[in-house]
Amino acid sequence: MELPFETELQVRFRDLDTLGHVNNAVYATYLEQARLRYFDRVLDVPWEEREMVLASQSVEFARPLTLEDGTIRVACGVTEVGETSFRMRSRVFAGDDGDPAATADGTIVAVAGGEPREIPESWRERFIEFEPGL
Amino acid sequence: MELPFETELQVRFRDLDTLGHVNNAVYATYLEQARLRYFDRVLDVPWEEREMVLASQSVEFARPLTLEDGTIRVACGVTEVGETSFRMRSRVFAGDDGDPAATADGTIVAVAGGEPREIPESWRERFIEFEPGL
Amino acid sequence: MELPFETELQVRFRDLDTLGHVNNAVYATYLEQARLRYFDRVLDVPWEEREMVLASQSVEFARPLTLEDGTIRVACGVTEVGETSFRMRSRVFAGDDGDPAATADGTIVAVAGGEPREIPESWRERFIEFEPGL
Amino acid sequence: MELPFETELQVRFRDLDTLGHVNNAVYATYLEQARLRYFDRVLDVPWEEREMVLASQSVEFARPLTLEDGTIRVACGVTEVGETSFRMRSRVFAGDDGDPAATADGTIVAVAGGEPREIPESWRERFIEFEPGL
Repeated sequence: MELPFETELQVRFRDLDTLGHVNNAVYATYLEQARLRYFDRVLDVPWEEREMVLASQSVEFARPLTLEDGTIRVACGVTEVGETSFRMRSRVFAGDDGDPAATADGTIVAVAGGEPREIPESWRERFIEFEPGL
Repeated sequence: MELPFETELQVRFRDLDTLGHVNNAVYATYLEQARLRYFDRVLDVPWEEREMVLASQSVEFARPLTLEDGTIRVACGVTEVGETSFRMRSRVFAGDDGDPAATADGTIVAVAGGEPREIPESWRERFIEFEPGL
Repeated sequence: MELPFETELQVRFRDLDTLGHVNNAVYATYLEQARLRYFDRVLDVPWEEREMVLASQSVEFARPLTLEDGTIRVACGVTEVGETSFRMRSRVFAGDDGDPAATADGTIVAVAGGEPREIPESWRERFIEFEPGL
Repeated sequence: MELPFETELQVRFRDLDTLGHVNNAVYATYLEQARLRYFDRVLDVPWEEREMVLASQSVEFARPLTLEDGTIRVACGVTEVGETSFRMRSRVFAGDDGDPAATADGTIVAVAGGEPREIPESWRERFIEFEPGL
């Protein structure tokens, strides 16, 4: 499945662990940053007012990232839209490698006052427009 | 399922995001720290020589953690041992809440020179001894 | 000079850099966490309403901290109170070592709407009460 | 004083604190990352073999950085070379603002086996060549 959005992120020395590999927790930060930029592009709501929370996320780590990777690419897209939540898939790429260094799936819930709320119709449309195959 | 090990971790101000909630990536750090201490207790190998990598991890976020949680508890244990990998389950608890704030499952692979290797027999025994129900 | 407050902080694996030393940026996190607890103890204002910002900070790194240090201690105290700002000194200790692993001095400014404001009289009193030698 | 090197760094959502400002500890990460790239450019030694440690650092925070700053610039340069250590100055810039958001001075010590060693002659030359006014 083709993911409709891709963005570049810088690997930092602080992202590394004692083995010189990007620490597993930092992948969650990369995914979050890519997601944020995807929403910047697709939604019409500034980030402070988006009112959504990550409900779950699974990550598969295929190969280590290192400082030498310099700038990595994270692709992501919405793969499914439910009533109060949607699913996103992300892939992390490094260098010319066509195989992802990591793959992730997450469920994001729209909330209001801490409670799930319906996905706004405009979001649903924009997710689908941005990703025609949805 | 009862998890055989539990440890206390401090929530830091730096762990919080703009909403005052512990950021999702930081849960991975909590899980990692708990895992490390579990291995300190169960295995007979210093951490620098353990040669294992996290191959995948899924986390469900049930409720936000905040600075007011102060010290949280992370329980974890090995739930399955394969040939070159094993599965761990973890639960994050805050306050007197008996329901976990987060639950995670991860797959950890024993490696040598970047390649999977057989789980050492002594590890297998120690995981099982430490967790009689395995 | 004796510092009037001391608190314990946990070193995390994520705090380490590629050499296995606590990364220099993490010291700032330790100092911040200790400062927060000091204010919890000394001031009568919840942390969200304290309205103060760190204006400058200098840190001297005397010796590396490692994961083996496990739990470190950070001592801190207010060393000077001005009109709109005050100075804090902090020391980071590890193990039984009486010599600090790091020493820091910071200037903190009370703000309202982004502008400096006078240090509340109650703060001034509490800083002095808590630290009789001031 | 003009600083001879400048590099661009991305602000991440994870860098923010509860007020939506880049946390003070993260400035140390920005400074470190800029320093690393400066040495990549100036020295002839790969980063794993540079054997230098940050001995002290002072940072002045002039104005907050936010996510809206997107990409910031960090300028840095060596301002003084001693026998076993050298001094670096750094400035963090955001947007079109000609005034730095932060200014920092640090002392870096060349080490071998944990002990100070003489600054290699080639480093001294390269620092001076790269910064003719030194």
